Amino acid sequence: MAEAKVLSGAGLRGQVAGQTALSTVGQEGAGLTYRGYDVRDLAASVGFEEVAYLLLYGELPNTEQLAAYTSKLKSLRDLPQALKEVLEQIPASAHPMDVMRTGASVLGTLEQELSFDQQQDTADRLLAIFPAIMCYWYRFSHDGVRIDCVTDEDSLGGHFLRLLHGKKPSELHVQVMNVSLILYAEHEFNASTFTARVCASTLSDLYSCVTAAVGTLRGPLHGGANEAAMEMIEKFSSAEDAKAGTLAMLERKDKIMGFGHAIYKDSDPRNEVIKAWSKKLADEVGDSVLYPVSEAIDKTMWEQKKLFPNADFYHASAYHFMGIPTKLFTPIFVCSRVTGWAAHVFEQRANNRIIRPSAEYIGVAQRPVPPLDQR
Amino acid sequence: MAEAKVLSGAGLRGQVAGQTALSTVGQEGAGLTYRGYDVRDLAASVGFEEVAYLLLYGELPNTEQLAAYTSKLKSLRDLPQALKEVLEQIPASAHPMDVMRTGASVLGTLEQELSFDQQQDTADRLLAIFPAIMCYWYRFSHDGVRIDCVTDEDSLGGHFLRLLHGKKPSELHVQVMNVSLILYAEHEFNASTFTARVCASTLSDLYSCVTAAVGTLRGPLHGGANEAAMEMIEKFSSAEDAKAGTLAMLERKDKIMGFGHAIYKDSDPRNEVIKAWSKKLADEVGDSVLYPVSEAIDKTMWEQKKLFPNADFYHASAYHFMGIPTKLFTPIFVCSRVTGWAAHVFEQRANNRIIRPSAEYIGVAQRPVPPLDQR
Repeated sequence: MAEAKVLSGAGLRGQVAGQTALSTVGQEGAGLTYRGYDVRDLAASVGFEEVAYLLLYGELPNTEQLAAYTSKLKSLRDLPQALKEVLEQIPASAHPMDVMRTGASVLGTLEQELSFDQQQDTADRLLAIFPAIMCYWYRFSHDGVRIDCVTDEDSLGGHFLRLLHGKKPSELHVQVMNVSLILYAEHEFNASTFTARVCASTLSDLYSCVTAAVGTLRGPLHGGANEAAMEMIEKFSSAEDAKAGTLAMLERKDKIMGFGHAIYKDSDPRNEVIKAWSKKLADEVGDSVLYPVSEAIDKTMWEQKKLFPNADFYHASAYHFMGIPTKLFTPIFVCSRVTGWAAHVFEQRANNRIIRPSAEYIGVAQRPVPPLDQR
Repeated sequence: MAEAKVLSGAGLRGQVAGQTALSTVGQEGAGLTYRGYDVRDLAASVGFEEVAYLLLYGELPNTEQLAAYTSKLKSLRDLPQALKEVLEQIPASAHPMDVMRTGASVLGTLEQELSFDQQQDTADRLLAIFPAIMCYWYRFSHDGVRIDCVTDEDSLGGHFLRLLHGKKPSELHVQVMNVSLILYAEHEFNASTFTARVCASTLSDLYSCVTAAVGTLRGPLHGGANEAAMEMIEKFSSAEDAKAGTLAMLERKDKIMGFGHAIYKDSDPRNEVIKAWSKKLADEVGDSVLYPVSEAIDKTMWEQKKLFPNADFYHASAYHFMGIPTKLFTPIFVCSRVTGWAAHVFEQRANNRIIRPSAEYIGVAQRPVPPLDQR
């Protein structure tokens, strides 16, 4: 075997592992683009279903296509009875991301992707069904209620809020969910997406790829940041308290979640968007603690460390203002990112080579096997 | 952002993506080593439980450690009732690898790995329970039988055969299963193992890593080769027929499964081992078709293409002679490789950086978002 090249930098950082036409991250003049569109423009002017269509089908839908797509997704929201039975077996103490992972995996046993010709239908099914997987389990395990998983909400964000709270969500909340789902939809070769592509490279099915990606997003270094930010923010009772607490955490060199980014160097383009919406929500509920606390932490981190809030930081307060339990923050990420994962799987399949790197061996030299009685 | 390096070769082939002390593949003088031991020596002289211990705990066990480990694994074989309920929801038509993936995922909701201190116990649990996940589902969905998942077989291979067939396996069959599980246990940065490491790099839990790896192994370019080899071998009625058929397939440029390897160039060191055992099984059952057919294909591939059989090719006939349904071949691979996957997760955790490569952008240039009515 030819000697494998040793790359600089662990974690393949800065190394190109493949091609994509889906997004750019951190390129000059455009912090984050989906198929050429600035994510801030998308968040300001289109619905999440349009972004899902853009990622999965290649272009923004026209009026007719959007109506057909919205209607298709609405028809794919309900859970098969067997999946409900499975979700009822999962205890309230389970990690909600394990529920999302299991839901995707079980669905793959019930509604197999038998041919890659079915990939877009399979992606749409996963996209439409994830809110029901999350909310059916959550409401059953926490409240003992078997919810109806069909609603007449047009948007996925409104549908999710309706399933969670059991009542029609406000227009503002539907808007914020829409923006949030757009912001989280796609982000190039992040770890969960890269997992989906490695899985896809063996020509495995889409359910396997998405299941693998959910498990990867679960990790606290990846999808868990908005939950960790919420836990921190909730500890403080005022802006002054938050400033003092942040300084103390910095002094102790505690890890402060929701700041900085592996790729962005100066700011996360998603932050300005969700921050503005979090402010609107704070004004709506008459909040005088969480938002000022968030701003104080933000300001202190910049003054002390020149670290900027990333997409996750103001998502914490925004979700909280909408009455979403903290443990469901990362599962919402799944409901959005499944679009990016699936689109990357389609790309991998269209131009595939199995992803099989080499390792640098750092173990013991070759040795004979000692008999059991001589060990 | 600094310009990312564009690597030669798709699929990260020949690129070092990390370090390992677990195995070497294709290095001169030793085709495949686990922690310094030639896999052929291990297959000739130790039990699979010793290899599992070697990979997961770092060294081969002594007599006392082996007795304790065997006893520990035996105590971890049974399914929780909730997992049985889930497996009963999965139809006979499901892909068996989807069942393994779902089993691992559900177990993660029932018996969480709450701290990395639990990683070895979690790995042992997965190792011990996989045969029951496979066989409970298989026997329930195919035969309507709810099997008892506890047996007094000391070895995992014997336990599996007992669950599958419902009777004590022969000494020869237990030996062959033992060898087979050793041969499949570990193979450096193959795609499923690399998936497990990417997942681990976000500090996700072991169940997520193993679930992701199962989904990756499922792909026909990775774990499905022994099943595909079986389907081909079964088509021929004699050595002559097989030779003519192989020549015809080569003529048509059909893909012939079970030959060649991404890393090995001249031979797969696992082949000579499983081939010899397949011969013994053929003699035992008085086979005069499958083994001669396999040999004829093997000989023709070498004469025509200088392609050698890999680990999967003679596994097909060996498993078949033991009465194992073809659809369970890849799930057996899971029962073995879970040791390598878990050991790689431990390594990743011990010296972690999130695996987050870059992509080369090949999409459209930045563009404004058109209003809905202008698309």
